[in-house]
Amino acid sequence: MAAESGEKWVLAVTAQTPTNIAVIKYWGKRDEDLILPINDSISVTLDPGHLCTTTSVAVSPAFTHDRIWLNGKEVSLSGGRYQNCLRELRSRATDYEDEKKGIKITKKDWEKLRVHIVSYNNFPTAAGLASSAAGLACLVFSLAKLMNVKEDHSKLSAIARQGSGSACRSLYGGFVKWIMGKEENGSDSIAVQLADEKHWDDLVIIIAVVSSRQKETSSTSGMRDTVETSALIKHRAKEVVPKRIVEMEEAIAKRDFPAFSRLACADSNQFHAVCLDTLPPIFYMNDTSHRIISCVEKWNRHEGSPQVAYTFDAGPNAVLISQNRKAATLLLQRLLFHFPPQSDADLDSYVIGDKTILKDAGIQGIKDIEALTPPPEIKENASSQRFRGDVSYFICTRPGRGPIMLTDESKSLINPETGLPK
Amino acid sequence: MAAESGEKWVLAVTAQTPTNIAVIKYWGKRDEDLILPINDSISVTLDPGHLCTTTSVAVSPAFTHDRIWLNGKEVSLSGGRYQNCLRELRSRATDYEDEKKGIKITKKDWEKLRVHIVSYNNFPTAAGLASSAAGLACLVFSLAKLMNVKEDHSKLSAIARQGSGSACRSLYGGFVKWIMGKEENGSDSIAVQLADEKHWDDLVIIIAVVSSRQKETSSTSGMRDTVETSALIKHRAKEVVPKRIVEMEEAIAKRDFPAFSRLACADSNQFHAVCLDTLPPIFYMNDTSHRIISCVEKWNRHEGSPQVAYTFDAGPNAVLISQNRKAATLLLQRLLFHFPPQSDADLDSYVIGDKTILKDAGIQGIKDIEALTPPPEIKENASSQRFRGDVSYFICTRPGRGPIMLTDESKSLINPETGLPK
Repeated sequence: MAAESGEKWVLAVTAQTPTNIAVIKYWGKRDEDLILPINDSISVTLDPGHLCTTTSVAVSPAFTHDRIWLNGKEVSLSGGRYQNCLRELRSRATDYEDEKKGIKITKKDWEKLRVHIVSYNNFPTAAGLASSAAGLACLVFSLAKLMNVKEDHSKLSAIARQGSGSACRSLYGGFVKWIMGKEENGSDSIAVQLADEKHWDDLVIIIAVVSSRQKETSSTSGMRDTVETSALIKHRAKEVVPKRIVEMEEAIAKRDFPAFSRLACADSNQFHAVCLDTLPPIFYMNDTSHRIISCVEKWNRHEGSPQVAYTFDAGPNAVLISQNRKAATLLLQRLLFHFPPQSDADLDSYVIGDKTILKDAGIQGIKDIEALTPPPEIKENASSQRFRGDVSYFICTRPGRGPIMLTDESKSLINPETGLPK
Repeated sequence: MAAESGEKWVLAVTAQTPTNIAVIKYWGKRDEDLILPINDSISVTLDPGHLCTTTSVAVSPAFTHDRIWLNGKEVSLSGGRYQNCLRELRSRATDYEDEKKGIKITKKDWEKLRVHIVSYNNFPTAAGLASSAAGLACLVFSLAKLMNVKEDHSKLSAIARQGSGSACRSLYGGFVKWIMGKEENGSDSIAVQLADEKHWDDLVIIIAVVSSRQKETSSTSGMRDTVETSALIKHRAKEVVPKRIVEMEEAIAKRDFPAFSRLACADSNQFHAVCLDTLPPIFYMNDTSHRIISCVEKWNRHEGSPQVAYTFDAGPNAVLISQNRKAATLLLQRLLFHFPPQSDADLDSYVIGDKTILKDAGIQGIKDIEALTPPPEIKENASSQRFRGDVSYFICTRPGRGPIMLTDESKSLINPETGLPK
């Protein structure tokens, strides 16, 4: 074999994978090791132009052990979840040959060859924006390419699922369903695409990254506690979610925004309700989250039909899905009215992502935010309060595509000579 | 009849009625007019020495219409709920005679005679401390005495229930169960006493009155919305609460604090969970409420067995039930550590009610609060933050007795000459 120790070659590939936000929530496992959920879930993939993970993976006979660097820092790969993914991928690796470079790796070689993984998020990891979903999906996707794994995306999703449940939904763009499956070995617990990102391209998404003083409960331990102690979670998983999945699929197929919005909001609220029904109770939303919901609910009611849907994952950040650009513009004005930046902030880092929404909203500088007047649906003085500094920043984005390979070598995060992070 | 117009006599009685806090919650009606609940509930009556309503009611042939003054201000009696109570009581009134004063009122006279009602709470109405429960219970109890109604407390509870659901539980001291009943006319939806206040007199109760900037959803409209829109409330009412009622009755009978605490906390959390599962969602707890829960949960876990149970009604205030005086003392230290008063506050109005707890806690002045150190269960710095001003004040109290008549005329709120508020 060509992959003998002493050889100097480094084979690397780079991939980019989006994050996703569930609109019918995953909360609760029926199998902790295989990460098998107690109900189906549905997500929207977010535009990787604004939120994504980029991962380079490399293999070389010179590598002595598997290593991973996340956002510039080497971390341990010994966790069971990483190991499960690596094992699954190695067992599906196939022969690889690059005659030009004189590299030949047989199926059997992959068991012995060690890999280096270097991963970066283009958004703050700490912001609680499903970085593990994008990260694990990208790790599996890029290693599968490197190892010449021939399985389709659905099969890869089942591997990514074992790294981080919701990662399986990041293997596709657009609208994605994670089917819970029935098999004990998890082979049918996979993600499928319901519709691609072009199917409903009116939607605009604004994420409010909410400042938090609380230490949050990890979703892994949180959902375990919920399954063990909530008196409502079983009813939710067995009776409520299955109906909502059918309705949500239909709403997406028909681009029925009122139904989409009603279901997304109700399911986000119910997920947080079962968290609260946990012993000890779990609070992911804080007063700022509540205020954002009130602002949206008030406006939707005032308009007579939903303009914006809200959904919150395991943290206080709001993901707000507007039915179109016009609604997104009006939403951003409302958000900036209620949550102006600290006086020392600059607009460019307060609203990031697709800045054309900001321009449409008529906001060119901080002084335009200060000059915003209360929206017409607000009557009482109490509701027109401004909560300066309670939001860290906003991200304007939209539904986006699935994982891609980055063939441009300059995008690689790995030095092709050393096999270490650039 | 003696009750002829032109006569000058005023017949008045005065009663005092406690408020109560549910430990298995009432949320949701099956009949809006009769106020019939969808599940049983259980409450602890609070010591009227610290939280109660005093009501004087009077009748006179000189009165031209029914009138009511609440906390010094005349308000309308035309609401259906007041009218239901008045009608029910008048229909059960019996002959009354006071030979000395020359007053004779027949059963029939009561239909025509008008009443004056004057009511005061010894605690801030706006604080969200179930003032309507104590108020309606006191109105019914005092009018029943005035009108010589011979029904027992359970029958009176069914009348008070029609004024304000949870008022029926304020007709008894100690531990009280509101049986939801089965009859369409509500005749069997009554309160019964499970045990009097002496049965478990170790318990000490501390109420944290939490500052709130939010306008709250009224419980009447809130529970209607929950019944109409929550996908979880039926499961709660039919499957979860009936078991908890049995367990809570047993916990109270056996003075089993760990079981009492587990059930009370879980049921408070589940009530707020179904509020969150409502469309639009209802938030009664705020970040301060969450912090109080975290503080209690952390301490209970640290001790290995529950020291304190928490329960929250339709607002952010925490009602904290300690298993004994020692635990209450340690609790108060923790609460004052996390929630010190504003710098201009005086201790005397920051901790009210039974001040001996404060003394036991070694707090003699504001400077003793400032000197408090983080409790031992707190390891991380983040958890030892102090949230100055987030609690308005604390009330130290205990389980207490049911309604009583105040025979001392000086306690009457009505001027015996004019029949108007003193």
